[in-house]
Amino acid sequence: MELSKNTSTSQNENSSQIILRPVGIIKNTIQKPFLSAEDDGIKMQGDIDTVRAHIREIRQEISEIIINKDLIEILEDIEKYSHITILYWADKVPEQSRSLTKVHPMGRKENPKVGIFSTCSPARPNPVLMTVVRLHERNKNVLHVTGLDAVNGSPVIDIKPFVREFYPQDTVRVPEWMEKIIKENQEY
Amino acid sequence: MELSKNTSTSQNENSSQIILRPVGIIKNTIQKPFLSAEDDGIKMQGDIDTVRAHIREIRQEISEIIINKDLIEILEDIEKYSHITILYWADKVPEQSRSLTKVHPMGRKENPKVGIFSTCSPARPNPVLMTVVRLHERNKNVLHVTGLDAVNGSPVIDIKPFVREFYPQDTVRVPEWMEKIIKENQEY
Repeated sequence: MELSKNTSTSQNENSSQIILRPVGIIKNTIQKPFLSAEDDGIKMQGDIDTVRAHIREIRQEISEIIINKDLIEILEDIEKYSHITILYWADKVPEQSRSLTKVHPMGRKENPKVGIFSTCSPARPNPVLMTVVRLHERNKNVLHVTGLDAVNGSPVIDIKPFVREFYPQDTVRVPEWMEKIIKENQEY
Repeated sequence: MELSKNTSTSQNENSSQIILRPVGIIKNTIQKPFLSAEDDGIKMQGDIDTVRAHIREIRQEISEIIINKDLIEILEDIEKYSHITILYWADKVPEQSRSLTKVHPMGRKENPKVGIFSTCSPARPNPVLMTVVRLHERNKNVLHVTGLDAVNGSPVIDIKPFVREFYPQDTVRVPEWMEKIIKENQEY
């Protein structure tokens, strides 16, 4: 593992850098991130109807996940899962957006400004994004999936199985503004 | 974003490196990874009873997630979630284990050797591990959680809300060997 000390004054050993090596790339027709990171926060593309149209589009959009050919063995048996978790790098997030600490969720001023870790904002210190997708087909080193909210060309960091039993089975509590977002999404 | 070309012969633009900066550190009493990565694959600590004892232990173990003090605002509102997703770096995985492509799941020879992306093995090209945990308390920049299967000192990469509705609601299919692992875990 390559580690090099950075210039942060943090007293913890966690001031080291971590190097990731992309294992593949995402190909689809999504050209622009749905939420874009700006200097003062995040901004949503268009109004709420545009967002709903975008959500419908993503549900149907087939993305190809092209894994580097020299890693083809790493995919063995993956087609036995109906759903998999994709970890990818939001490479369109500008460097300065990685130091934002608070945003209005979904870039909407009517949502209270909260800490980035309470949100799904792509503008975060380490923009490693994560989506559970439906796996339709594997063709050698290429996976065909739906439900992936990633921009064309995003580097793939990791793929993990989705196993429902490994997630909480008890009651889950979320903030009020998040409940509102969930309801809006379910209507469409 | 710092990017530097590596020496891979891949024709894709995904041959660039990605730099992560840890945002915090995990403190608990877990000293050794439950699955350790070896040259020829992964190895489980002890027999199946040891594993079950370990699973019980993790469910109860309180981990502290200490976020860098200069990032404290990033946690605002997080205490309104009952569950959060922790992304952390498995810094005990040796460099050579990052090039493994197939393993026996859980390091057990009776499980078929399958591709790493079909497993939860910590030995993977980018050992970014992910667990949804129960959040009990926030005390300034420190979160108290249970259910985190991370070794003491692991660097924290990201924290995301856990929202059940963002995960698949339909039937989920997994390989037979994974079904067996799920059943074994549920018995304890």
